[in-house]
Amino acid sequence: MLYKDSGVDIRKADDAFSEVKSFINKTLTNNVINSPGHFGATYRIPEGYEKPVLVSSIDSVGTKVLVAVEYGFYQGLGNDIVNHCVNDILVMGAKPLYILDYFGSGKLDKKVFVEVVKGMSSACEENECSLIGGETAELPDLYADNIFDLAVQITGIVEQDKIIDGSKIREGDKVFGLASSGFHTNGYSLIRAVIKNAGLSLDEHIEELNGILGDLLLIPHKSYYREVFPILDSLRGICHITGGGFYGNIPRILPEGLTCYLDLSGFKVPELFRFIQRKGKIPEREMFSVFNMGIGMILVGGEDIKLGTQIGEIRKGEKKVEINGV
Amino acid sequence: MLYKDSGVDIRKADDAFSEVKSFINKTLTNNVINSPGHFGATYRIPEGYEKPVLVSSIDSVGTKVLVAVEYGFYQGLGNDIVNHCVNDILVMGAKPLYILDYFGSGKLDKKVFVEVVKGMSSACEENECSLIGGETAELPDLYADNIFDLAVQITGIVEQDKIIDGSKIREGDKVFGLASSGFHTNGYSLIRAVIKNAGLSLDEHIEELNGILGDLLLIPHKSYYREVFPILDSLRGICHITGGGFYGNIPRILPEGLTCYLDLSGFKVPELFRFIQRKGKIPEREMFSVFNMGIGMILVGGEDIKLGTQIGEIRKGEKKVEINGV
Repeated sequence: MLYKDSGVDIRKADDAFSEVKSFINKTLTNNVINSPGHFGATYRIPEGYEKPVLVSSIDSVGTKVLVAVEYGFYQGLGNDIVNHCVNDILVMGAKPLYILDYFGSGKLDKKVFVEVVKGMSSACEENECSLIGGETAELPDLYADNIFDLAVQITGIVEQDKIIDGSKIREGDKVFGLASSGFHTNGYSLIRAVIKNAGLSLDEHIEELNGILGDLLLIPHKSYYREVFPILDSLRGICHITGGGFYGNIPRILPEGLTCYLDLSGFKVPELFRFIQRKGKIPEREMFSVFNMGIGMILVGGEDIKLGTQIGEIRKGEKKVEINGV
Repeated sequence: MLYKDSGVDIRKADDAFSEVKSFINKTLTNNVINSPGHFGATYRIPEGYEKPVLVSSIDSVGTKVLVAVEYGFYQGLGNDIVNHCVNDILVMGAKPLYILDYFGSGKLDKKVFVEVVKGMSSACEENECSLIGGETAELPDLYADNIFDLAVQITGIVEQDKIIDGSKIREGDKVFGLASSGFHTNGYSLIRAVIKNAGLSLDEHIEELNGILGDLLLIPHKSYYREVFPILDSLRGICHITGGGFYGNIPRILPEGLTCYLDLSGFKVPELFRFIQRKGKIPEREMFSVFNMGIGMILVGGEDIKLGTQIGEIRKGEKKVEINGV
């Protein structure tokens, strides 16, 4: 018996890697020391920081993978996971340095892998971040043949006294919302269940949404790096609206004794969210506990914030979020 | 419809996390700034380096998970993945700083998760490494209910001019082997196929191995940190024998024009490897292309290396490994 008889072909991964090398190379900077192939990927710590702190986050695209597999579009998943991770460290005030990815699959499909890495590479370029390593694993029986999981860890850097953790948020601060591009990477198990129960197909053109369902669900997670990084000094709190929605995420940045009060009466929740809500008869509060509802990032600070739409303010009270009318 | 109707219960992950908090806390050092719960995990870069370089590696335990699931023993997987990652950066000369883990599952089983995190935490303590964050995802339909994947990224640090990449290896250097503890984390798809074809059960007591098959297969990956880190200055090349075995890994550290010549006639390959080889009728060369064959790490340098057993030397020739008799 040989290794490949058990469903693992090491050469396939090497072969797939050689196809994506040129995309990856475009993300590398002078700080990346060695080329891929070593046991560890090396990255020179940038100079100019007095008390440099590394900020890391690891995440996956979750069951959005299953929507991509069903619809046959993969590139966006690469953008999804990189942008998600960039946002997670951006809210701490950090600048992205590099990522490594983990691609686990039942049977490695070169075409799919190449599309995903293309997506990751282009997102890395946009976020000034290097793709310095990764692991591509073929794991028969752990994943079904056409299924895979995609996780990425990002590492960024911030000056210690510039870490943003919400502790400086104070009574009277204004709350601004930045538009999301769609569902980003959260709530896809619920979305898939709604679609299945409603007998909808991803290929369907949805009149009221003016688009094909699969296309709309696979719009990549938006990165807020280019907009938000330049104004970090003016912010006292930043919140990425990810899994757990408004109610799960906003309290993560609030100091004790302060309530984040939101009034969304002037804000129109995008029709895509309302469509899934109607089809699934999902209660309003559950929607705000699972999805971003059209607002992917929240900024807290003074009135001088020149980004996004004001949607609320910080008031004295219990450490929680209150949404007018929800 | 609610989120939990689609098979995802966010509170379950929070609940599982609260059970492992005390184990994780034991791994934290003064360099870890914030407590878990933030969007990004923060780690202060240690002082005292002139040109500090980060060394990162990401990996999973592969289909060893499926052996653990069948046998019902999970804690070792946590040790496996941490020790594997520690070795991957140790061979570059790096000291481990911290890890983040990704635990993706079909249905989150709190008992299993707690065991895995206990294993990771104890391995982190042994390797002077902090477990500073992670993602625990419940992904119905992507994984079968009782199946999960476990990936970890490690970040370590090394002084730039102390990076060990094999480039200083020269003709006449001696090659030393360090014993492995078993199959470590590689070749489990082949092992599983052999066991299945041979009609063996994990519960079986194997006379010639003097142990139960499941126990022997789940012995955790060994970390070489405590032995090897103190003697790094005396080494010109270090190789972790992982996926790809001897033939896939040793050339990764060889400079052009040098052959790693091994004579294992004085070394006894552990019976566990021979047992799997016999049952699967696996050719000798394939064994050395997949498994560590009882040698988990290889050190290259002068005769002053006081660790392990000398198993070969570096000679002029093609950049490859040659094993006497294989």
